[in-house]
Amino acid sequence: MCDACVMNAVKDRMLSRRNFFKTSAAAGAATALAATGQPVLAAAHGGVEDLTHELYPEFPTFFGEPGFAMDQLFEFSQHGFNLMNLTINEHTGTHIDAPLHFSGDGAAVNEIPVSQLVAPLCVVDIAAKAADDPDAQVTPDDLKAWIAANGDIPDNACVAMHSGWAGKVDTEGFRNFDGTVMHFPGFHVEAAMMLMEETGAQSMAVDTLSLDHGPSADFATHYVWLPTGRFGIENIAGLDRVPAAGATIVVGAPKHRGGSGGPCRIFAMV
Amino acid sequence: MCDACVMNAVKDRMLSRRNFFKTSAAAGAATALAATGQPVLAAAHGGVEDLTHELYPEFPTFFGEPGFAMDQLFEFSQHGFNLMNLTINEHTGTHIDAPLHFSGDGAAVNEIPVSQLVAPLCVVDIAAKAADDPDAQVTPDDLKAWIAANGDIPDNACVAMHSGWAGKVDTEGFRNFDGTVMHFPGFHVEAAMMLMEETGAQSMAVDTLSLDHGPSADFATHYVWLPTGRFGIENIAGLDRVPAAGATIVVGAPKHRGGSGGPCRIFAMV
Repeated sequence: MCDACVMNAVKDRMLSRRNFFKTSAAAGAATALAATGQPVLAAAHGGVEDLTHELYPEFPTFFGEPGFAMDQLFEFSQHGFNLMNLTINEHTGTHIDAPLHFSGDGAAVNEIPVSQLVAPLCVVDIAAKAADDPDAQVTPDDLKAWIAANGDIPDNACVAMHSGWAGKVDTEGFRNFDGTVMHFPGFHVEAAMMLMEETGAQSMAVDTLSLDHGPSADFATHYVWLPTGRFGIENIAGLDRVPAAGATIVVGAPKHRGGSGGPCRIFAMV
Repeated sequence: MCDACVMNAVKDRMLSRRNFFKTSAAAGAATALAATGQPVLAAAHGGVEDLTHELYPEFPTFFGEPGFAMDQLFEFSQHGFNLMNLTINEHTGTHIDAPLHFSGDGAAVNEIPVSQLVAPLCVVDIAAKAADDPDAQVTPDDLKAWIAANGDIPDNACVAMHSGWAGKVDTEGFRNFDGTVMHFPGFHVEAAMMLMEETGAQSMAVDTLSLDHGPSADFATHYVWLPTGRFGIENIAGLDRVPAAGATIVVGAPKHRGGSGGPCRIFAMV
């Protein structure tokens, strides 16, 4: 239906058609170039930060097996367009854990209210202690310190752990597997419970492979947090470029029916 | 590594642990319930609208073949958690066409500047003429009428065709295949060229299966638009819930390396 001949015919037609336009293509290109600056919302908010890792077949996964594959079904030089088929383990890359991930009847990824996907972002920086101890966890004391410095955790907030792990994503240090268990930071279950019982936080995010820290044998934080209808984000990136308080996170969660999660595009409006 | 025994042990532990908390779980739940209201950014912007269709195996596709499949690898009652494996044709559901889709060396989906993914949204409503003629196209005259009513198309804008097709997504009328060609609205190539040459628009969106209207035999609009580094969005939803001008679109594009596009979560801040 679409081959190189069709493609070239269209290109030729378009090139000749251009001569009929009063406004020159060169002027149009200049306009377009000028348009690559800051978008309106970004200007209003000071900027947009991308909190998303690139996804590729070697992206480290919790289970240690590849979680993403891409097969090229159509190729431009042969078919006139490029098109890939993707195979994705839902919990790969920068991704969301829907309540359904750790519950029998929780909200699937398509059922998470949009109002929770756009939320105040609170960044809890434990990078210093994580540099000393890869098994470090966000504790109630870390949350109390954040509150003392920044005020109450807002209703609907996404509380994010910044452990510095995002910078290790292309290294063995990201999974940090010792042959028996992994070693990376996460949320202590008591911090999760404090968020549930003393704040209106609706989501948590980590810059590591799991809401629970690497050595966890029981997924305690997952089991406490997700079945309540709250969601989680794993492998978030770029938290070093957003403030501890005041940014808004926009979670571009996938919307497949009945999904337990999936890769997300995540922005912070700062 | 995670079975029902572990899960129940963790749940039991958490239930008993709750009794040690000074703040009751009931009070916590009430706080959480109150937190499901409008997020901070939404309040500041008047609201967030979801411009994304749900994705499911029967979602109509350009080629007429299923573009999405989901296999359950782990099931909660058996394994203690749910996890799916997804198979996705990149150009399925509400999705983005990266420049690479119709060019040999254009930007892949992971290379689109973030500044272009957050953009002023201009909605061109051709629903009335599309109701009369399913092959209707956005023409330069439609763009001129939009400009006359709303002012110049802003730099970096996403110009979206609202044809009313989103409401047909679960019907045969969405593809509207007559046995030879499909019939649905799209952008006329001259409208695309007007946007390129007379405005700073960086993206276009359609609520149908293709930037080109259904009967197109040559993908003229794709071939004019995408190779310039601009991107497209297909199968967008919810344009009836946003104003013609003044909203900001946030395109949660996937970020897989070398991709030609993929399903997106798209919001409008209104």
